[in-house]
Amino acid sequence: MVGQSLAKLFESRADDLYVGYGLKPRIVAVSDNGGMACDTAGLDCARLVRAKEQKGTVAAYSDGRGGGGSNGGGGGRTPDISSPTAAEMAEAVSGADVLVETTPSNYKDAEPGMTNITDAMKRRMHVVSVNKGPLALAFPSLNELAAYNRVMFRFSGTVGGGTPILDYAKNSLSGERITSFSGILNGTTNYILSAMAEGMSPKSALQDARKKGYVEADEALDLDGLDAAAKLVILANWVMGMKVTMPDVSCTGIRGVTSADIKRAARKNKVVKMTAACGNDALTVAPVAIPRDDPLCVNGTLNAISFTSEHSGTQTIIGRGAGGTETASAILRDLLYIRQGITSGAYG
Amino acid sequence: MVGQSLAKLFESRADDLYVGYGLKPRIVAVSDNGGMACDTAGLDCARLVRAKEQKGTVAAYSDGRGGGGSNGGGGGRTPDISSPTAAEMAEAVSGADVLVETTPSNYKDAEPGMTNITDAMKRRMHVVSVNKGPLALAFPSLNELAAYNRVMFRFSGTVGGGTPILDYAKNSLSGERITSFSGILNGTTNYILSAMAEGMSPKSALQDARKKGYVEADEALDLDGLDAAAKLVILANWVMGMKVTMPDVSCTGIRGVTSADIKRAARKNKVVKMTAACGNDALTVAPVAIPRDDPLCVNGTLNAISFTSEHSGTQTIIGRGAGGTETASAILRDLLYIRQGITSGAYG
Repeated sequence: MVGQSLAKLFESRADDLYVGYGLKPRIVAVSDNGGMACDTAGLDCARLVRAKEQKGTVAAYSDGRGGGGSNGGGGGRTPDISSPTAAEMAEAVSGADVLVETTPSNYKDAEPGMTNITDAMKRRMHVVSVNKGPLALAFPSLNELAAYNRVMFRFSGTVGGGTPILDYAKNSLSGERITSFSGILNGTTNYILSAMAEGMSPKSALQDARKKGYVEADEALDLDGLDAAAKLVILANWVMGMKVTMPDVSCTGIRGVTSADIKRAARKNKVVKMTAACGNDALTVAPVAIPRDDPLCVNGTLNAISFTSEHSGTQTIIGRGAGGTETASAILRDLLYIRQGITSGAYG
Repeated sequence: MVGQSLAKLFESRADDLYVGYGLKPRIVAVSDNGGMACDTAGLDCARLVRAKEQKGTVAAYSDGRGGGGSNGGGGGRTPDISSPTAAEMAEAVSGADVLVETTPSNYKDAEPGMTNITDAMKRRMHVVSVNKGPLALAFPSLNELAAYNRVMFRFSGTVGGGTPILDYAKNSLSGERITSFSGILNGTTNYILSAMAEGMSPKSALQDARKKGYVEADEALDLDGLDAAAKLVILANWVMGMKVTMPDVSCTGIRGVTSADIKRAARKNKVVKMTAACGNDALTVAPVAIPRDDPLCVNGTLNAISFTSEHSGTQTIIGRGAGGTETASAILRDLLYIRQGITSGAYG
């Protein structure tokens, strides 16, 4: 999904990226559940998308030559590898500059993302990850590994999707000291709580969210607050300089929130939201009642985060959470950053 | 006000700025309505603030030695200049790197800010301006002048006060294309409209705002939308790359908004807000009815702006508008940027 969006983005913005940023990305290898496609001369984006859409896997890239209106770009080959690791890909394409890691997040062992990322770093590849698992479980050590190998490690897409929350906190507030923050970082639970605030029962709100495709296959990631907790860990490390991982978060999901809770809050002109908060060195994910006119109080699947700083008061950013296009846009931002780092001569 | 906040910020964060950013600012000259203080060895911040607070002008800086608990820092001298221009100051202190321009905005001829800024640029000084006038009337030519003289020109404090709206749009959304934006950029009119939405008459809402000190001495700046229009011009130039000035804005203030307008909007679940909008190459400041649940719909003196981008949807930033501390924080951000530019060797 993210990979396809990224390929489409490269395709549609090829001219603009080259003229505006000097970026002409060459995709030398792509893998998915069904196999991989690689070509050191560069894979054709449109053909990759076609292979995925028509055959379900990029492994069909070289088959695509005959059918489906190929435009003849790139000389594709498909090595005989059924489920390649990043190590095998890196072996096949040893000259690649960057690994873009997009496997699903898991908070048990963070695999296969963890191995993909550490292997790539050891091979001196820069890494862009939109997989939250490795960051949630091992942010401090991954950052050390990147520094040790002198590679850049970027993960804009892990928090806020297309909304550049991490960049904002780090760069736009340069010179400021952020003292605390609190965010609504999981769109699914926010959708459910918003529906409950409008009178739906917890059960039908959940069913409605499921029907709309908002709930992850592993429902615990949303409902028990794990996804929000992972984002909180990433923010705490990146924005506050804390060295923390998932076990440091006190995490309560929304399964215990009742219609009575929602009504009680409403009587005080408040709304129940599952917030991920960092303050006084404590990390907490939990449903809390916040004033209805607080800027943080967004509805539907929107994400929002309020940073409180020493001299500039509280600032709130609101935007869409993750979606294929938004996440691809975040990856592109990271790639532009890495390109700038490479050309500046600080790396490589 | 802003100057004092900045002096206090330098004072309170001296250690942190030096350790964290390598910044050790030396203030070599300060001027106000009452005169100026200058010392190439560096003025003492605490003593500057004391002179201003106790005697009403920094010209009393060297008098301060005897009274009011001087801490003996800096060897102050007060040249015999009653109303110095930036040119005279620059003459007195020819080695200064940066001019921080904080005179009040005016949209007739933008003086004395315009002359201060252009003189400084011609003398190869970098410029930080929190005065919107020169930017509103001559953004394109000031930017050209800065480029021609190879100096940096920053103005973070002109839009959004402590909320880094300009930085966000330019840097955090790198790689994105902003297609339009709309903002509530004047806290005073937003306070008045918010009060009207709660049932106050236009007249008493205005009186209330006056009593709280929210309304500028020249009321037209707020009520006729000039302040919002100036910010819109700055955003359009900086974010969208348009080359526009104040006359390009179609500007309607809030004087014509009636309680009936507010009620009519409320019946449609909307709220009347004075927005500054850029889209389809048109620049407009006007009171419009927006949906109550739009994230842009903030109350009180808050500022908010929504950027719509091609791939990341609409993103809203909300924060306090300008105040002394917030603006000083924005100036500090600009100074850090300039310091980085100087040390990188790209300038000077």
